[in-house]
Amino acid sequence: MDAAAVQDYLGDCRRRVLTELNEIVPRNRYAGVLYDLLLDYPLRGGKCFRPALCIATCRALGGRLQDVLATAATLELFHNAFLGIDDIQDRSSLRRGLPTLYASYGMPIAVNVGVASLALCLAPLLENTRRLGLAKALKILDLVSAMVRNSVEGQAVELSWVRAGCAHRLTDRHYCWMCYKKTCCYSFIAPMQIGAVVAGARRELLRSIRRYGTYLGLAFQIQDDILNLQADERYGKEIGGDLWEGKHTLILIHMMRTVSRRRRQRAQEILQKPREDKTEGEVRLLRDLIQSSSSLEYAGRAARLFAGKAGDLLGRDLSALKPSVHREFLLAMTHHVRTRET
Amino acid sequence: MDAAAVQDYLGDCRRRVLTELNEIVPRNRYAGVLYDLLLDYPLRGGKCFRPALCIATCRALGGRLQDVLATAATLELFHNAFLGIDDIQDRSSLRRGLPTLYASYGMPIAVNVGVASLALCLAPLLENTRRLGLAKALKILDLVSAMVRNSVEGQAVELSWVRAGCAHRLTDRHYCWMCYKKTCCYSFIAPMQIGAVVAGARRELLRSIRRYGTYLGLAFQIQDDILNLQADERYGKEIGGDLWEGKHTLILIHMMRTVSRRRRQRAQEILQKPREDKTEGEVRLLRDLIQSSSSLEYAGRAARLFAGKAGDLLGRDLSALKPSVHREFLLAMTHHVRTRET
Repeated sequence: MDAAAVQDYLGDCRRRVLTELNEIVPRNRYAGVLYDLLLDYPLRGGKCFRPALCIATCRALGGRLQDVLATAATLELFHNAFLGIDDIQDRSSLRRGLPTLYASYGMPIAVNVGVASLALCLAPLLENTRRLGLAKALKILDLVSAMVRNSVEGQAVELSWVRAGCAHRLTDRHYCWMCYKKTCCYSFIAPMQIGAVVAGARRELLRSIRRYGTYLGLAFQIQDDILNLQADERYGKEIGGDLWEGKHTLILIHMMRTVSRRRRQRAQEILQKPREDKTEGEVRLLRDLIQSSSSLEYAGRAARLFAGKAGDLLGRDLSALKPSVHREFLLAMTHHVRTRET
Repeated sequence: MDAAAVQDYLGDCRRRVLTELNEIVPRNRYAGVLYDLLLDYPLRGGKCFRPALCIATCRALGGRLQDVLATAATLELFHNAFLGIDDIQDRSSLRRGLPTLYASYGMPIAVNVGVASLALCLAPLLENTRRLGLAKALKILDLVSAMVRNSVEGQAVELSWVRAGCAHRLTDRHYCWMCYKKTCCYSFIAPMQIGAVVAGARRELLRSIRRYGTYLGLAFQIQDDILNLQADERYGKEIGGDLWEGKHTLILIHMMRTVSRRRRQRAQEILQKPREDKTEGEVRLLRDLIQSSSSLEYAGRAARLFAGKAGDLLGRDLSALKPSVHREFLLAMTHHVRTRET
């Protein structure tokens, strides 16, 4: 499947998910003060790749679209909540090329929209008891519970690193562990496992999906970190925001162990400052150190390695996925996650 | 039941809920960066009155403590999440007499702790399928889903009022409607209804509880608004914070319709300023207008009226609650909510 076909598959999933979200999100008297804001980010043209992964996995295993669609849409609601919350935590000004909810409405309203987005997830997942039967519905709720717990634990680890400014003490292993918790579980493993449960998959397959989703998620997050430093305006986020925030990416960790001791100490001083105390010049210095250490290239190689491992796994351990456009999409994702430019 | 006995009942519930929370909240490698912070507010000595309402209702209907305890503890987790989120939204400096998580750890970490607190609610509620059987477990999840939805809708209404600075256009009816959504559902109606479901109550009783919880919640929130303006340091929150925030309380709405047109316009100008643009003198002026309008006294009478209606209902429509210390506690709450000083 080529890049255009991946976009078609994503676009098709996105249309269906948006239709479903319009069913899930109430159009009542609170629309003007709450639910219109909640639908703002999804309507801005998110890629909806988490629902697409869920749908593709379900259908490649022989499951039906109508059985998985509401649950897949719920994953976009969770994502919507986390986007809004991330924007607040990072004090971001742009999301998908437009002002963030936080920037437009202020923090109290943006926080409430995030919580509302989480709140709306529960009803469709409970409705699964009628749609899919009790066993599958409860299994999905268990997976969602673990997904959210992993996300907040991963987020807590990352925030504690930023607060401590401890990139000089971290290894690639630390990064992969944080990334597994923060990104892989919620963006790859849970969506695919949930799709598999809808299709009636066994426990063994869920374990293989976990390995596949871990490699895919690592490649995705590393590419995300690269894009944050080098992307053009299509990226839709603030360029270099990760350096201002002091995020401890694989790139930063590599740079810190590569540069001279004197430069590492200077970089550490800058990283330990809160965002508002950093100067343009200091952030430029971090960027220069990353360049002279070839840390972006190092991260690019790591993303390629992990994506390759995911591709290998798909051929070997995920043979239950039947040859189909859905399996082709999942295979193409191993290429897409590390070559995407937005 | 006198005030001391109410405190004993609350204290007993609190001890049991804290023991239960220690079971629910993981003590894993993420304790230092996440879960210790999550237990911070509960350990500061919250009153745990939501779990107590849940437990008392269940037991007064013949339900068993061991069946309701984990679910009651979950209500304190929800409350913990909303407290943390409220503190962020209001940029509060104090909670229960100590610095807020927001003030101590900064907004990103405080937000994550709030989300984590929500995330941990799901597992014990799913465990109810084994503890209470499917029918009760799913009914409780439905009630929780409605509770959270009502809360975010109420919060959205209140925030939209603050943003618009529209107290001069609101009536007592508007206030009661917002308060029903924001306070009554989550602090009174849902806890009691959930306790009733654990005990096997019928739909009819849930309707009576809704009415009782509405009156009790209105009395509680109005008293909360009064305390915010006149309380001493025992209250544990910033005094007058509601005026700085521009919260549209019953007190404020009464003042706005009572003062002269010229003063109303001046008050409106002040209310439409964001917190950071208001001066000490402006907030003092609002306070003086409230005093000269006897708006605190008006709100006190309203709280007494609503609490009285709750008491009447308990005698008339809630006769299923068996004479017991638990029923006595619920009856005493109709007095406690409007006479409490913290």
